[in-house]
Amino acid sequence: MSLNLKLVGQKSAPIEFAYSWKDVVLYALGVGAKADELDVLYEGRGPKVLPTFAVVPSFASMIAVSADLGANPVMIVHGEQSIRLHRPIPPQGKLLTTSEVKGIYDKGKGALCVVEAKTVDEKGAPLFDNIFSIFVRGAGGFGGERGPEAVKADPPADRAPDFEIVEATTPEQALLYRLSGDLNPLHADPQFAKMAGFDRPILHGLCTFGHAGRALLRGAAGGDPARLVGFSARFAGIVLPGDTLTTRGWRIEPNKYVVTTSTQDGRVVLSNAVAELVSADSAL
Amino acid sequence: MSLNLKLVGQKSAPIEFAYSWKDVVLYALGVGAKADELDVLYEGRGPKVLPTFAVVPSFASMIAVSADLGANPVMIVHGEQSIRLHRPIPPQGKLLTTSEVKGIYDKGKGALCVVEAKTVDEKGAPLFDNIFSIFVRGAGGFGGERGPEAVKADPPADRAPDFEIVEATTPEQALLYRLSGDLNPLHADPQFAKMAGFDRPILHGLCTFGHAGRALLRGAAGGDPARLVGFSARFAGIVLPGDTLTTRGWRIEPNKYVVTTSTQDGRVVLSNAVAELVSADSAL
Repeated sequence: MSLNLKLVGQKSAPIEFAYSWKDVVLYALGVGAKADELDVLYEGRGPKVLPTFAVVPSFASMIAVSADLGANPVMIVHGEQSIRLHRPIPPQGKLLTTSEVKGIYDKGKGALCVVEAKTVDEKGAPLFDNIFSIFVRGAGGFGGERGPEAVKADPPADRAPDFEIVEATTPEQALLYRLSGDLNPLHADPQFAKMAGFDRPILHGLCTFGHAGRALLRGAAGGDPARLVGFSARFAGIVLPGDTLTTRGWRIEPNKYVVTTSTQDGRVVLSNAVAELVSADSAL
Repeated sequence: MSLNLKLVGQKSAPIEFAYSWKDVVLYALGVGAKADELDVLYEGRGPKVLPTFAVVPSFASMIAVSADLGANPVMIVHGEQSIRLHRPIPPQGKLLTTSEVKGIYDKGKGALCVVEAKTVDEKGAPLFDNIFSIFVRGAGGFGGERGPEAVKADPPADRAPDFEIVEATTPEQALLYRLSGDLNPLHADPQFAKMAGFDRPILHGLCTFGHAGRALLRGAAGGDPARLVGFSARFAGIVLPGDTLTTRGWRIEPNKYVVTTSTQDGRVVLSNAVAELVSADSAL
Protein backbone atom coordinates (compact mmCIF):
# COMPACT_ATOMS: atom_id res chain seq x y z
CA MET A 1 0.00 0.00 0.00
CA SER A 2 1.45 3.36 -0.91
CA LEU A 3 0.42 6.58 0.73
CA ASN A 4 -0.30 9.80 -1.09
CA LEU A 5 2.99 11.55 -0.27
CA LYS A 6 2.00 14.61 -2.26
CA LEU A 7 -0.18 15.64 0.67
CA VAL A 8 2.89 17.01 2.46
CA GLY A 9 2.78 20.78 2.57
CA GLN A 10 -0.79 20.94 1.32
CA LYS A 11 -3.20 23.13 3.21
CA SER A 12 -6.85 22.18 3.45
CA ALA A 13 -9.76 24.48 2.78
CA PRO A 14 -11.16 25.81 6.09
CA ILE A 15 -13.64 23.46 7.75
CA GLU A 16 -16.42 25.16 9.69
CA PHE A 17 -17.61 23.97 13.10
CA ALA A 18 -20.65 25.62 14.69
CA TYR A 19 -21.45 24.69 18.26
CA SER A 20 -23.55 25.66 21.25
CA TRP A 21 -23.13 25.25 25.00
CA LYS A 22 -24.92 21.90 24.71
CA ASP A 23 -22.02 20.53 22.65
CA VAL A 24 -19.62 21.81 25.30
CA VAL A 25 -21.54 20.06 28.10
CA LEU A 26 -22.00 16.88 26.07
CA TYR A 27 -18.23 16.76 25.55
CA ALA A 28 -17.54 17.36 29.25
CA LEU A 29 -19.87 14.49 30.23
CA GLY A 30 -18.26 12.40 27.47
CA VAL A 31 -14.83 12.78 29.10
CA GLY A 32 -16.26 11.93 32.49
CA ALA A 33 -16.98 15.31 34.13
CA LYS A 34 -18.69 14.82 37.48
CA ALA A 35 -21.61 16.66 39.07
CA ASP A 36 -19.20 18.64 41.27
CA GLU A 37 -17.54 20.07 38.15
CA LEU A 38 -20.63 22.17 37.52
CA ASP A 39 -18.68 25.02 35.89
CA VAL A 40 -18.21 22.87 32.79
CA LEU A 41 -21.67 21.23 32.94
CA TYR A 42 -24.15 24.06 33.44
CA GLU A 43 -24.87 26.94 31.08
CA GLY A 44 -25.71 29.11 34.09
CA ARG A 45 -21.95 29.15 34.79
CA GLY A 46 -20.89 29.71 31.17
CA PRO A 47 -20.34 26.85 30.80
CA LYS A 48 -16.57 27.01 31.07
CA VAL A 49 -15.02 24.94 28.30
CA LEU A 50 -12.55 22.16 28.99
CA PRO A 51 -9.33 22.96 27.09
CA THR A 52 -9.27 19.47 25.57
CA PHE A 53 -12.52 20.36 23.77
CA ALA A 54 -10.03 21.83 21.25
CA VAL A 55 -9.80 18.40 19.62
CA VAL A 56 -13.50 18.42 18.69
CA PRO A 57 -13.77 21.30 16.18
CA SER A 58 -10.62 20.12 14.41
CA PHE A 59 -11.48 16.43 14.36
CA ALA A 60 -13.02 16.66 10.87
CA SER A 61 -9.60 17.78 9.57
CA MET A 62 -7.99 14.61 10.85
CA ILE A 63 -10.70 12.52 9.21
CA ALA A 64 -10.29 14.39 5.91
CA VAL A 65 -6.51 13.90 5.87
CA SER A 66 -6.89 10.24 6.85
CA ALA A 67 -9.17 9.76 3.85
CA ASP A 68 -6.84 11.62 1.46
CA LEU A 69 -3.85 9.58 2.63
CA GLY A 70 -5.14 6.57 0.77
CA ALA A 71 -4.52 4.30 3.76
CA ASN A 72 -6.62 1.32 4.72
CA PRO A 73 -8.83 2.71 7.52
CA VAL A 74 -8.38 -0.35 9.73
CA MET A 75 -4.59 0.19 9.62
CA ILE A 76 -4.82 3.74 10.95
CA VAL A 77 -3.97 4.32 14.60
CA HIS A 78 -4.12 7.64 16.38
CA GLY A 79 -0.55 7.92 17.64
CA GLU A 80 -0.17 11.24 19.41
CA GLN A 81 -2.12 14.39 20.10
CA SER A 82 -1.04 17.87 21.01
CA ILE A 83 -3.13 20.94 21.76
CA ARG A 84 -2.07 24.54 22.27
CA LEU A 85 -4.60 27.11 23.50
CA HIS A 86 -4.25 30.81 22.68
CA ARG A 87 -7.18 31.82 24.88
CA PRO A 88 -10.15 30.16 26.59
CA ILE A 89 -12.59 28.48 24.22
CA PRO A 90 -15.93 30.33 24.15
CA PRO A 91 -19.05 28.34 25.13
CA GLN A 92 -20.55 28.72 21.67
CA GLY A 93 -19.47 29.95 18.28
CA LYS A 94 -18.55 29.26 14.72
CA LEU A 95 -14.94 28.22 14.21
CA LEU A 96 -12.80 27.62 11.16
CA THR A 97 -10.02 25.04 11.05
CA THR A 98 -7.32 24.90 8.40
CA SER A 99 -4.98 21.94 8.39
CA GLU A 100 -1.62 21.21 6.81
CA VAL A 101 0.19 17.91 6.47
CA LYS A 102 3.60 18.69 8.00
CA GLY A 103 5.23 15.43 7.12
CA ILE A 104 4.76 11.77 6.21
CA TYR A 105 7.61 9.88 7.79
CA ASP A 106 8.93 6.40 7.14
CA LYS A 107 9.14 4.59 10.44
CA GLY A 108 10.07 1.22 8.97
CA LYS A 109 7.05 -0.95 9.64
CA GLY A 110 4.64 1.97 9.53
CA ALA A 111 4.30 5.53 8.35
CA LEU A 112 3.67 8.54 10.55
CA CYS A 113 1.57 11.38 9.17
CA VAL A 114 1.74 14.61 11.15
CA VAL A 115 -1.12 17.05 10.64
CA GLU A 116 -1.23 20.53 12.09
CA ALA A 117 -4.68 22.07 12.40
CA LYS A 118 -5.10 25.74 13.29
CA THR A 119 -8.48 26.95 14.48
CA VAL A 120 -9.66 30.56 14.43
CA ASP A 121 -12.91 32.22 15.46
CA GLU A 122 -15.34 34.01 13.15
CA LYS A 123 -13.20 37.13 13.19
CA GLY A 124 -10.13 35.13 12.21
CA ALA A 125 -8.48 35.41 15.63
CA PRO A 126 -6.40 32.32 16.56
CA LEU A 127 -8.07 30.19 19.22
CA PHE A 128 -6.13 26.94 19.39
CA ASP A 129 -3.86 24.64 17.40
CA ASN A 130 -3.82 20.85 17.26
CA ILE A 131 -1.22 18.41 16.06
CA PHE A 132 -2.66 15.02 15.16
CA SER A 133 -0.11 12.26 14.60
CA ILE A 134 -1.56 9.43 12.57
CA PHE A 135 0.30 6.14 12.46
CA VAL A 136 -0.45 3.89 9.47
CA ARG A 137 0.51 0.31 10.24
CA GLY A 138 2.20 -1.55 7.42
CA ALA A 139 2.71 1.57 5.31
CA GLY A 140 6.41 2.18 6.01
CA GLY A 141 9.45 1.18 3.98
CA PHE A 142 8.82 3.62 1.13
CA GLY A 143 12.28 5.15 1.42
CA GLY A 144 11.16 8.35 3.08
CA GLU A 145 12.77 10.32 5.87
CA ARG A 146 12.46 8.91 9.36
CA GLY A 147 11.49 12.31 10.68
CA PRO A 148 12.30 13.94 13.99
CA GLU A 149 12.59 11.66 17.00
CA ALA A 150 9.93 12.31 19.59
CA VAL A 151 11.16 14.28 22.58
CA LYS A 152 11.25 11.92 25.55
CA ALA A 153 9.17 12.98 28.51
CA ASP A 154 9.60 10.35 31.20
CA PRO A 155 8.56 11.07 34.77
CA PRO A 156 11.41 11.51 37.28
CA ALA A 157 12.30 8.04 38.60
CA ASP A 158 13.43 9.35 41.96
CA ARG A 159 10.30 10.94 43.38
CA ALA A 160 6.58 10.48 43.87
CA PRO A 161 4.19 12.39 41.64
CA ASP A 162 2.98 15.82 42.73
CA PHE A 163 -0.58 14.73 42.14
CA GLU A 164 -2.42 11.49 41.50
CA ILE A 165 -6.07 11.33 40.46
CA VAL A 166 -7.89 8.01 40.27
CA GLU A 167 -11.19 7.88 38.42
CA ALA A 168 -13.30 5.15 36.86
CA THR A 169 -14.67 5.49 33.36
CA THR A 170 -18.16 4.06 32.88
CA PRO A 171 -19.13 1.13 30.65
CA GLU A 172 -21.11 3.71 28.61
CA GLN A 173 -18.21 6.17 28.30
CA ALA A 174 -17.42 5.52 24.63
CA LEU A 175 -21.11 5.51 23.66
CA LEU A 176 -21.46 8.95 25.23
CA TYR A 177 -18.12 10.35 24.04
CA ARG A 178 -18.77 9.42 20.41
CA LEU A 179 -21.76 11.79 20.29
CA SER A 180 -19.11 14.54 20.21
CA GLY A 181 -18.12 13.48 16.70
CA ASP A 182 -15.86 10.43 16.43
CA LEU A 183 -18.35 7.83 15.23
CA ASN A 184 -15.82 5.10 14.44
CA PRO A 185 -17.75 1.85 15.12
CA LEU A 186 -14.62 0.47 16.81
CA HIS A 187 -15.89 2.29 19.89
CA ALA A 188 -19.47 0.95 19.79
CA ASP A 189 -19.91 -2.19 17.73
CA PRO A 190 -18.82 -5.48 19.35
CA GLN A 191 -18.55 -7.27 15.98
CA PHE A 192 -16.52 -4.49 14.40
CA ALA A 193 -14.23 -4.44 17.44
CA LYS A 194 -13.68 -8.21 17.13
CA MET A 195 -12.79 -7.82 13.45
CA ALA A 196 -10.22 -5.21 14.45
CA GLY A 197 -8.70 -7.64 16.94
CA PHE A 198 -10.23 -6.48 20.22
CA ASP A 199 -12.41 -8.41 22.65
CA ARG A 200 -14.92 -5.59 22.74
CA PRO A 201 -15.28 -1.91 21.77
CA ILE A 202 -12.44 0.24 23.07
CA LEU A 203 -12.43 3.77 24.41
CA HIS A 204 -11.41 6.63 22.10
CA GLY A 205 -7.81 7.72 22.72
CA LEU A 206 -9.09 11.29 22.74
CA CYS A 207 -11.61 10.38 25.45
CA THR A 208 -8.72 9.21 27.65
CA PHE A 209 -6.93 12.44 26.68
CA GLY A 210 -9.95 14.40 27.95
CA HIS A 211 -10.05 12.41 31.21
CA ALA A 212 -6.36 13.15 31.76
CA GLY A 213 -6.95 16.81 30.94
CA ARG A 214 -9.63 17.00 33.65
CA ALA A 215 -7.29 15.29 36.11
CA LEU A 216 -4.64 17.90 35.27
CA LEU A 217 -7.05 20.72 35.98
CA ARG A 218 -7.88 19.29 39.40
CA GLY A 219 -4.37 18.16 40.28
CA ALA A 220 -2.38 21.13 39.04
CA ALA A 221 -4.63 24.05 38.12
CA GLY A 222 -7.11 24.43 40.99
CA GLY A 223 -9.85 23.25 38.65
CA ASP A 224 -9.55 26.33 36.41
CA PRO A 225 -9.93 25.39 32.70
CA ALA A 226 -8.25 28.65 31.66
CA ARG A 227 -4.93 27.61 33.21
CA LEU A 228 -4.15 24.62 30.96
CA VAL A 229 -2.64 26.05 27.78
CA GLY A 230 -0.82 23.07 26.31
CA PHE A 231 -1.13 19.30 26.51
CA SER A 232 0.49 16.62 24.40
CA ALA A 233 0.48 12.86 24.83
CA ARG A 234 1.19 9.56 23.12
CA PHE A 235 -1.53 6.91 22.99
CA ALA A 236 0.47 4.07 24.44
CA GLY A 237 -2.20 1.49 25.25
CA ILE A 238 -5.80 0.42 24.95
CA VAL A 239 -8.47 1.57 27.42
CA LEU A 240 -11.74 -0.33 27.73
CA PRO A 241 -14.89 1.50 28.80
CA GLY A 242 -15.24 0.83 32.52
CA ASP A 243 -11.50 0.89 33.17
CA THR A 244 -10.26 2.94 36.09
CA LEU A 245 -7.69 5.55 35.07
CA THR A 246 -4.93 6.88 37.29
CA THR A 247 -3.35 10.11 36.12
CA ARG A 248 -0.13 11.19 37.79
CA GLY A 249 1.70 14.46 37.31
CA TRP A 250 5.27 15.48 38.16
CA ARG A 251 6.04 19.17 38.24
CA ILE A 252 9.31 19.59 36.33
CA GLU A 253 9.20 23.37 35.89
CA PRO A 254 7.07 25.97 37.69
CA ASN A 255 4.25 25.57 35.15
CA LYS A 256 5.14 22.33 33.41
CA TYR A 257 4.18 18.78 34.33
CA VAL A 258 5.17 15.39 32.98
CA VAL A 259 2.08 13.20 33.05
CA THR A 260 1.20 9.53 32.81
CA THR A 261 -2.16 7.82 32.72
CA SER A 262 -2.51 4.11 33.45
CA THR A 263 -5.26 1.57 33.93
CA GLN A 264 -6.16 -0.40 37.06
CA ASP A 265 -3.71 -3.15 36.06
CA GLY A 266 -0.81 -0.71 35.80
CA ARG A 267 -0.64 -0.51 31.99
CA VAL A 268 0.43 2.94 30.79
CA VAL A 269 -2.08 4.27 28.25
CA LEU A 270 -0.86 7.87 27.94
CA SER A 271 2.90 8.33 27.88
CA ASN A 272 5.35 11.00 26.83
CA ALA A 273 2.77 13.44 28.08
CA VAL A 274 3.53 17.05 28.94
CA ALA A 275 1.16 19.70 30.22
CA GLU A 276 1.82 23.41 30.26
CA LEU A 277 -0.04 25.70 32.60
CA VAL A 278 -0.14 29.38 33.33
CA SER A 279 -0.30 30.85 36.81
CA ALA A 280 -3.67 31.70 38.27
CA ASP A 281 -2.98 35.43 37.93
CA SER A 282 -2.03 35.12 34.27
CA ALA A 283 -4.66 32.58 33.25
CA LEU A 284 -5.75 32.85 29.64
CA MET B 1 -53.35 34.23 41.24
CA SER B 2 -55.90 33.50 38.55
CA LEU B 3 -55.22 31.17 35.69
CA ASN B 4 -56.16 31.85 32.10
CA LEU B 5 -59.22 29.58 32.00
CA LYS B 6 -59.96 30.54 28.41
CA LEU B 7 -57.21 28.16 27.36
CA VAL B 8 -59.62 25.24 27.75
CA GLY B 9 -60.53 23.83 24.37
CA GLN B 10 -57.90 25.85 22.57
CA LYS B 11 -55.67 24.05 20.12
CA SER B 12 -52.10 25.16 19.62
CA ALA B 13 -50.44 25.73 16.29
CA PRO B 14 -48.30 22.71 15.36
CA ILE B 15 -44.83 22.75 16.90
CA GLU B 16 -42.11 21.16 14.76
CA PHE B 17 -39.43 18.89 16.19
CA ALA B 18 -36.61 17.71 13.93
CA TYR B 19 -34.27 15.08 15.31
CA SER B 20 -31.54 12.65 14.36
CA TRP B 21 -30.36 9.34 15.78
CA LYS B 22 -27.97 11.28 18.02
CA ASP B 23 -30.93 12.81 19.86
CA VAL B 24 -32.39 9.33 20.27
CA VAL B 25 -29.15 7.99 21.76
CA LEU B 26 -28.64 11.06 23.95
CA TYR B 27 -32.14 10.54 25.38
CA ALA B 28 -31.48 6.83 25.99
CA LEU B 29 -28.27 7.63 27.88
CA GLY B 30 -30.17 10.39 29.71
CA VAL B 31 -32.67 7.86 31.08
CA GLY B 32 -29.87 5.53 32.09
CA ALA B 33 -29.54 3.06 29.20
CA LYS B 34 -26.61 0.72 29.77
CA ALA B 35 -23.94 -0.56 27.40
CA ASP B 36 -25.76 -3.89 27.08
CA GLU B 37 -28.82 -2.07 25.69
CA LEU B 38 -26.92 -1.41 22.48
CA ASP B 39 -30.06 -1.52 20.29
CA VAL B 40 -31.05 1.90 21.65
CA LEU B 41 -27.50 3.28 21.83
CA TYR B 42 -25.90 2.51 18.47
CA GLU B 43 -26.96 3.79 15.07
CA GLY B 44 -25.69 0.56 13.52
CA ARG B 45 -28.73 -1.11 15.11
CA GLY B 46 -31.20 1.60 14.13
CA PRO B 47 -31.05 2.82 16.81
CA LYS B 48 -34.31 1.48 18.18
CA VAL B 49 -36.16 4.27 19.95
CA LEU B 50 -37.30 3.97 23.56
CA PRO B 51 -41.09 4.48 23.62
CA THR B 52 -40.77 7.07 26.40
CA PHE B 53 -38.83 9.26 23.92
CA ALA B 54 -42.40 10.28 22.96
CA VAL B 55 -42.28 12.91 25.72
CA VAL B 56 -39.37 14.74 24.06
CA PRO B 57 -40.89 16.03 20.79
CA SER B 58 -44.04 17.17 22.62
CA PHE B 59 -42.27 18.76 25.57
CA ALA B 60 -42.29 22.22 23.96
CA SER B 61 -46.12 22.03 23.96
CA MET B 62 -46.17 21.59 27.70
CA ILE B 63 -43.82 24.54 28.14
CA ALA B 64 -45.97 26.70 25.84
CA VAL B 65 -49.17 25.87 27.73
CA SER B 66 -47.45 26.42 31.08
CA ALA B 67 -46.45 29.89 29.92
CA ASP B 68 -49.93 30.71 28.56
CA LEU B 69 -51.55 29.57 31.83
CA GLY B 70 -50.30 32.67 33.57
CA ALA B 71 -49.07 30.64 36.52
CA ASN B 72 -46.02 31.42 38.61
CA PRO B 73 -43.38 29.03 37.19
CA VAL B 74 -42.07 28.04 40.62
CA MET B 75 -45.60 26.91 41.58
CA ILE B 76 -45.89 24.50 38.64
CA VAL B 77 -45.40 20.80 39.33
CA HIS B 78 -45.52 18.07 36.72
CA GLY B 79 -48.28 15.86 38.14
CA GLU B 80 -48.86 12.99 35.77
CA GLN B 81 -47.74 11.80 32.36
CA SER B 82 -49.32 9.45 29.88
CA ILE B 83 -48.02 8.26 26.52
CA ARG B 84 -49.76 6.22 23.83
CA LEU B 85 -47.77 4.90 20.87
CA HIS B 86 -49.42 4.21 17.51
CA ARG B 87 -46.27 2.71 16.01
CA PRO B 88 -42.54 2.59 16.75
CA ILE B 89 -40.84 5.97 16.75
CA PRO B 90 -38.44 6.29 13.80
CA PRO B 91 -34.76 6.98 14.61
CA GLN B 92 -34.87 10.36 12.87
CA GLY B 93 -37.46 12.63 11.35
CA LYS B 94 -39.43 15.82 11.47
CA LEU B 95 -42.52 15.63 13.68
CA LEU B 96 -45.42 17.99 14.31
CA THR B 97 -47.19 18.23 17.65
CA THR B 98 -50.55 19.91 18.20
CA SER B 99 -51.80 20.33 21.73
CA GLU B 100 -55.14 21.09 23.29
CA VAL B 101 -55.96 22.07 26.85
CA LYS B 102 -58.60 19.51 27.85
CA GLY B 103 -59.47 21.01 31.18
CA ILE B 104 -58.37 23.25 34.04
CA TYR B 105 -59.75 21.72 37.21
CA ASP B 106 -60.18 23.18 40.66
CA LYS B 107 -58.60 20.82 43.16
CA GLY B 108 -59.05 23.11 46.14
CA LYS B 109 -55.52 24.11 47.09
CA GLY B 110 -54.28 23.82 43.55
CA ALA B 111 -55.42 23.70 39.95
CA LEU B 112 -54.85 20.83 37.54
CA CYS B 113 -54.34 21.61 33.86
CA VAL B 114 -54.63 18.66 31.51
CA VAL B 115 -52.97 19.02 28.10
CA GLU B 116 -53.30 16.50 25.31
CA ALA B 117 -50.56 16.61 22.68
CA LYS B 118 -50.86 14.64 19.44
CA THR B 119 -47.77 14.07 17.37
CA VAL B 120 -47.73 13.15 13.68
CA ASP B 121 -44.94 12.52 11.21
CA GLU B 122 -44.16 14.63 8.13
CA LYS B 123 -46.91 12.89 6.17
CA GLY B 124 -49.44 13.62 8.89
CA ALA B 125 -49.66 10.02 10.09
CA PRO B 126 -50.28 9.73 13.87
CA LEU B 127 -47.20 8.57 15.76
CA PHE B 128 -47.95 9.04 19.46
CA ASP B 129 -50.08 11.02 21.90
CA ASN B 130 -49.12 12.50 25.26
CA ILE B 131 -51.19 13.72 28.15
CA PHE B 132 -49.33 16.13 30.42
CA SER B 133 -51.02 16.92 33.73
CA ILE B 134 -49.72 20.13 35.21
CA PHE B 135 -50.50 20.91 38.84
CA VAL B 136 -50.35 24.57 39.84
CA ARG B 137 -49.89 24.91 43.58
CA GLY B 138 -51.95 27.65 45.22
CA ALA B 139 -54.08 28.27 42.12
CA GLY B 140 -57.24 26.39 43.18
CA GLY B 141 -60.41 27.73 44.76
CA PHE B 142 -61.60 29.55 41.66
CA GLY B 143 -65.00 27.81 41.70
CA GLY B 144 -64.26 25.50 38.81
CA GLU B 145 -65.17 21.86 38.32
CA ARG B 146 -63.20 19.35 40.32
CA GLY B 147 -62.73 17.23 37.21
CA PRO B 148 -62.65 13.45 36.85
CA GLU B 149 -61.11 11.50 39.72
CA ALA B 150 -57.96 9.68 38.73
CA VAL B 151 -58.46 5.99 38.14
CA LYS B 152 -56.76 4.16 41.01
CA ALA B 153 -54.11 1.70 39.97
CA ASP B 154 -52.72 0.14 43.11
CA PRO B 155 -50.64 -3.01 42.93
CA PRO B 156 -52.29 -6.19 44.22
CA ALA B 157 -51.61 -6.36 47.96
CA ASP B 158 -51.69 -10.14 48.05
CA ARG B 159 -48.84 -11.11 45.80
CA ALA B 160 -45.25 -10.38 44.88
CA PRO B 161 -44.50 -8.41 41.71
CA ASP B 162 -43.98 -10.28 38.45
CA PHE B 163 -40.77 -8.39 37.93
CA GLU B 164 -38.50 -6.17 39.95
CA ILE B 165 -35.63 -4.18 38.45
CA VAL B 166 -33.17 -2.31 40.66
CA GLU B 167 -30.94 0.28 39.08
CA ALA B 168 -28.92 3.23 40.32
CA THR B 169 -29.14 6.60 38.65
CA THR B 170 -25.87 8.51 38.49
CA PRO B 171 -25.07 11.81 40.19
CA GLU B 172 -24.81 13.27 36.66
CA GLN B 173 -28.18 11.85 35.49
CA ALA B 174 -30.10 15.14 35.49
CA LEU B 175 -27.20 17.03 33.85
CA LEU B 176 -27.25 14.49 31.03
CA TYR B 177 -31.04 14.13 30.77
CA ARG B 178 -31.60 17.89 30.48
CA LEU B 179 -29.66 17.98 27.20
CA SER B 180 -32.80 16.33 25.74
CA GLY B 181 -34.71 19.56 26.21
CA ASP B 182 -35.96 20.26 29.74
CA LEU B 183 -33.51 22.96 30.83
CA ASN B 184 -35.29 23.94 34.05
CA PRO B 185 -32.44 25.03 36.38
CA LEU B 186 -34.17 23.15 39.20
CA HIS B 187 -32.36 20.10 37.83
CA ALA B 188 -28.89 21.66 37.62
CA ASP B 189 -28.41 24.74 39.77
CA PRO B 190 -27.84 24.19 43.52
CA GLN B 191 -28.88 27.76 44.41
CA PHE B 192 -32.06 27.61 42.33
CA ALA B 193 -32.92 24.25 43.88
CA LYS B 194 -32.49 25.72 47.38
CA MET B 195 -34.79 28.62 46.50
CA ALA B 196 -37.39 26.09 45.40
CA GLY B 197 -37.11 24.32 48.73
CA PHE B 198 -34.82 21.39 47.89
CA ASP B 199 -31.44 20.52 49.37
CA ARG B 200 -29.96 20.13 45.92
CA PRO B 201 -31.02 19.77 42.27
CA ILE B 202 -33.62 17.04 41.75
CA LEU B 203 -34.09 14.59 38.92
CA HIS B 204 -36.67 15.35 36.22
CA GLY B 205 -39.89 13.40 36.75
CA LEU B 206 -39.75 12.46 33.08
CA CYS B 207 -36.24 11.07 33.59
CA THR B 208 -37.61 8.73 36.27
CA PHE B 209 -40.46 7.95 33.83
CA GLY B 210 -37.86 6.94 31.23
CA HIS B 211 -35.96 4.77 33.75
CA ALA B 212 -39.21 3.02 34.64
CA GLY B 213 -40.02 2.57 30.94
CA ARG B 214 -36.67 0.85 30.40
CA ALA B 215 -37.31 -1.39 33.40
CA LEU B 216 -40.68 -2.29 31.89
CA LEU B 217 -39.07 -3.26 28.62
CA ARG B 218 -36.64 -5.57 30.40
CA GLY B 219 -39.08 -6.92 32.95
CA ALA B 220 -42.14 -7.42 30.77
CA ALA B 221 -41.30 -7.03 27.09
CA GLY B 222 -38.13 -9.05 26.48
CA GLY B 223 -36.28 -5.79 25.93
CA ASP B 224 -38.26 -4.98 22.76
CA PRO B 225 -39.08 -1.23 22.57
CA ALA B 226 -41.87 -1.92 20.04
CA ARG B 227 -43.90 -3.84 22.63
CA LEU B 228 -44.61 -0.99 25.05
CA VAL B 229 -47.57 0.93 23.60
CA GLY B 230 -48.91 2.80 26.60
CA PHE B 231 -47.52 4.05 29.90
CA SER B 232 -49.02 6.45 32.40
CA ALA B 233 -47.82 7.41 35.85
CA ARG B 234 -48.17 9.92 38.65
CA PHE B 235 -45.09 11.72 39.95
CA ALA B 236 -45.51 10.89 43.61
CA GLY B 237 -42.16 11.85 45.08
CA ILE B 238 -38.80 13.49 44.57
CA VAL B 239 -35.83 11.60 43.12
CA LEU B 240 -32.30 12.91 43.63
CA PRO B 241 -29.60 12.16 41.05
CA GLY B 242 -27.69 9.19 42.40
CA ASP B 243 -30.75 7.55 43.95
CA THR B 244 -31.29 3.87 43.28
CA LEU B 245 -34.67 3.14 41.69
CA THR B 246 -36.61 -0.07 42.11
CA THR B 247 -39.35 -0.62 39.54
CA ARG B 248 -41.85 -3.39 40.22
CA GLY B 249 -44.56 -4.63 37.87
CA TRP B 250 -47.65 -6.73 38.57
CA ARG B 251 -49.32 -8.34 35.57
CA ILE B 252 -53.05 -7.67 35.99
CA GLU B 253 -54.16 -8.61 32.46
CA PRO B 254 -52.32 -10.55 29.77
CA ASN B 255 -50.69 -7.36 28.43
CA LYS B 256 -51.24 -4.93 31.25
CA TYR B 257 -49.07 -4.19 34.28
CA VAL B 258 -49.52 -2.05 37.34
CA VAL B 259 -46.16 -0.49 38.12
CA THR B 260 -44.47 1.29 41.02
CA THR B 261 -41.07 2.90 41.22
CA SER B 262 -39.47 3.68 44.57
CA THR B 263 -36.14 4.92 45.90
CA GLN B 264 -33.60 3.08 48.08
CA ASP B 265 -35.39 4.29 51.22
CA GLY B 266 -38.73 2.86 50.09
CA ARG B 267 -40.39 6.11 49.07
CA VAL B 268 -42.74 5.66 46.11
CA VAL B 269 -41.86 8.12 43.35
CA LEU B 270 -44.05 6.78 40.54
CA SER B 271 -47.51 5.64 41.55
CA ASN B 272 -50.82 4.95 39.86
CA ALA B 273 -48.75 3.68 36.98
CA VAL B 274 -50.08 1.41 34.27
CA ALA B 275 -48.23 -0.04 31.30
CA GLU B 276 -49.82 -1.57 28.25
CA LEU B 277 -47.92 -3.97 26.07
CA VAL B 278 -48.56 -5.92 22.92
CA SER B 279 -47.47 -9.50 22.39
CA ALA B 280 -44.18 -10.18 20.68
CA ASP B 281 -45.96 -11.39 17.54
CA SER B 282 -48.12 -8.29 17.30
CA ALA B 283 -45.50 -5.74 18.31
CA LEU B 284 -46.00 -2.31 16.78
